[in-house]
Amino acid sequence: MNRRLTGLFDTDDISVEDQDLLEYGQDWTRFYKPDPSAVVFPRNAQQVRDLVELARKDHLGLVPSGGRTGMSGGACAIDKEIVVSFQKMNAIMEFDRDDATLTVEPGVVTANLQQRAWDEGLFYPVDFGSSGSSYIGGNIATNAGGIKVLRYGMTRNWVAGLKVVTGNGDLLELNGGLVKNNTGYDLRHLFVGSEGTLGFIVEATMKLTGQPLPASVVLLAVPNMSDCLKILQVFRKGLTLNAFEFFSDNAMEKVLSVSEFSRPIDTESPYYVLLEFERSDKTALERAEASFAKCLKQGLLVDGIIASSEQQNKQLWQYRERITESITSRTPYKNDIAVRPSQVPSFLRAIEQVTSRYFPEFEIVWFGHIGDGNLHLNILRPEDWDVSSFKTACDELNHHILDLVSTFKGSVSAEHGIGLLKKAYLPYTRSEREIDLLRNLKQVFDPDSIMNPGKLI
Amino acid sequence: MNRRLTGLFDTDDISVEDQDLLEYGQDWTRFYKPDPSAVVFPRNAQQVRDLVELARKDHLGLVPSGGRTGMSGGACAIDKEIVVSFQKMNAIMEFDRDDATLTVEPGVVTANLQQRAWDEGLFYPVDFGSSGSSYIGGNIATNAGGIKVLRYGMTRNWVAGLKVVTGNGDLLELNGGLVKNNTGYDLRHLFVGSEGTLGFIVEATMKLTGQPLPASVVLLAVPNMSDCLKILQVFRKGLTLNAFEFFSDNAMEKVLSVSEFSRPIDTESPYYVLLEFERSDKTALERAEASFAKCLKQGLLVDGIIASSEQQNKQLWQYRERITESITSRTPYKNDIAVRPSQVPSFLRAIEQVTSRYFPEFEIVWFGHIGDGNLHLNILRPEDWDVSSFKTACDELNHHILDLVSTFKGSVSAEHGIGLLKKAYLPYTRSEREIDLLRNLKQVFDPDSIMNPGKLI
Repeated sequence: MNRRLTGLFDTDDISVEDQDLLEYGQDWTRFYKPDPSAVVFPRNAQQVRDLVELARKDHLGLVPSGGRTGMSGGACAIDKEIVVSFQKMNAIMEFDRDDATLTVEPGVVTANLQQRAWDEGLFYPVDFGSSGSSYIGGNIATNAGGIKVLRYGMTRNWVAGLKVVTGNGDLLELNGGLVKNNTGYDLRHLFVGSEGTLGFIVEATMKLTGQPLPASVVLLAVPNMSDCLKILQVFRKGLTLNAFEFFSDNAMEKVLSVSEFSRPIDTESPYYVLLEFERSDKTALERAEASFAKCLKQGLLVDGIIASSEQQNKQLWQYRERITESITSRTPYKNDIAVRPSQVPSFLRAIEQVTSRYFPEFEIVWFGHIGDGNLHLNILRPEDWDVSSFKTACDELNHHILDLVSTFKGSVSAEHGIGLLKKAYLPYTRSEREIDLLRNLKQVFDPDSIMNPGKLI
Repeated sequence: MNRRLTGLFDTDDISVEDQDLLEYGQDWTRFYKPDPSAVVFPRNAQQVRDLVELARKDHLGLVPSGGRTGMSGGACAIDKEIVVSFQKMNAIMEFDRDDATLTVEPGVVTANLQQRAWDEGLFYPVDFGSSGSSYIGGNIATNAGGIKVLRYGMTRNWVAGLKVVTGNGDLLELNGGLVKNNTGYDLRHLFVGSEGTLGFIVEATMKLTGQPLPASVVLLAVPNMSDCLKILQVFRKGLTLNAFEFFSDNAMEKVLSVSEFSRPIDTESPYYVLLEFERSDKTALERAEASFAKCLKQGLLVDGIIASSEQQNKQLWQYRERITESITSRTPYKNDIAVRPSQVPSFLRAIEQVTSRYFPEFEIVWFGHIGDGNLHLNILRPEDWDVSSFKTACDELNHHILDLVSTFKGSVSAEHGIGLLKKAYLPYTRSEREIDLLRNLKQVFDPDSIMNPGKLI
């Protein structure tokens, strides 16, 4: 097989080194043993097409690989597949000021795209922790979300055009940057979030927007979870919100325990809301203060603080951002789930009830993007439990949690995709018939099942 | 067949009256002779499923029918199909304040949805001339656009969840109002704009947003078409633009000739730009005036007017809105095309060149949503030509125009869909291979080709 690959790629662009197979054969998921047969680094779309032709003939699986920051095993090669790394297709090809778009190769690091947009006086708003290493191709293939979804939406909203190579070997040009185009099924949207199972992205045209105005951060102490949504309504009325996050009091305590931070608010409270609003004009701060006063008067919150400087903005964000780090030693069971925002309070209660019924000794740390209905559930291992018993218990608990997601008509993967990790979860929120249809759709674009085989469906 | 239909529907919900067959068998397109075999009015999703089962068994075509305001023959029954009117599925089912969504049946008139949102203190922003009669189901099936796309995007952006009955008879619940959901291919987006060829919408959850702030309208006299985009850049910088329209001087003259309006701007100019900006705060007007001054100084415009009252806003809009009416007597050849906004000036020049090369006596009236790249091309019949020779000439010219759309990688249908009318145009902007794939996709959801047969592909 390697001989045939060398017909398509320069020697520099193929590797079978153990180190490379290990490194390129997996993403951030650490449950799967990487076992690809080779890694290739195409330089252009034609090479990708030629590779697909070869793969069809020889029944080889192809696994796309970007910045390898995925959390669901969507970019793991565990069964002798060929890893197709887009590392060498990393050119920013065209900036169009009139259209406010950047056309890029899939291997462009998200942060580089963001930087280039900024240098042009514009803004690419989809942002998350792994922006410094994730690739835009992977962002699109997984429809990445992140910390500003409330304001700007997911990656899907920013894809103006795509070039893809399908499992049929076709090179398709989808939508080509048009704002308005109603000429049949929008295949662009089918490819966004398809995790490389229909085809590989070889070029993308991304929309940009204006640079954001300065923002201020507000931290609020909230006694009742269900009031968070009411607070959202009040603040949303007069202000543009960039983020609306929540976390539980024990999350706050965990952060305090690993940092030298003091409590930002004296009054203790079961929940905290962290929001960021744009200072769109001189009166925005006054409007924020009025919203604060209104919530206080209605008993929705008991205390709070509005940052008065960029430095204090950053400081307040730290209480939210350092939660993950603060609980790592407790080997948390994590889940990335979503329900409709209106369902968050009762969904959260239901999960707490089911957890305490089966495992009263388990502690739950909550945080998440409540404005999007996206919750990060973290269940901590009791200090006196070993990791393996904890994992077994969590696997048991998991079924009950997924049952609840199903009852609440939520999502088993809000922003991390399905990959290998969550394939078994799919039937909790998509019907058997719908999953059949997904399989049939894949068949249309990838009849030989060579594109990221075994992932998603 | 009618006996079998009566097994599924009450007598009141079936009609074979000539008058009904004629009325429900067509949309606003007037090129096709309606010839359905019956019209049915389902009351719920189950009746739609039963009907699909019957249609599969008996090989009957089903044509969905909403407000019948389509412009491409997407809702015409010309071959003994059964028309499925959603007129009686017109309930607004649920308003969710926390999610800011309205869940509705497909037969809800767009204006009723808009009104209900407004009554709840919110806003449904997709708006167009036919809002008073079009149905939301049809809006979604055709991904309707309209006059505020620059600000709010097309219908697609506002669909939070769909229930559809496919040609397989499956009832699918797609996305269910979730903001974040990355669990496989997003079928919701596949159904939006599919013109009833994959399945029929039986319920939709639509997102709402905050009510808009008061706006002001600006009319500008612009000597050079290519400067319109520069003007857009300048005004966009400090202001939120609801609309950015343009029209040519002869469009202005035609409006003046049918109205008692006087010229709104003394200075004559080949092009006019009409823009609307939100008065987001007290300084918005000053920012608009500064943008105006900047454009004037740069020579991008030669004159202009900023409306100083709501009444004047409406008056200025009239110069744009009455264009269609003012040219009707000239039986214009119309086209709804789009290119990337940056391509508008050269595309427009190219069309003018090709038209004057073949038919120098033809007059072109331009108007459109330039901010979206969507142009409405209107070629007027010379007064001394009869309609039939003009039509023949336009059919000839049409090929050259579509060739240009193809060269510019534009869209042959920006906002009106394909239906019956533009099927032959599809190959100008979508490759043969892509059209094959569209057919294969249809096959997955509608293996017996009973759902709106003959439309789109």
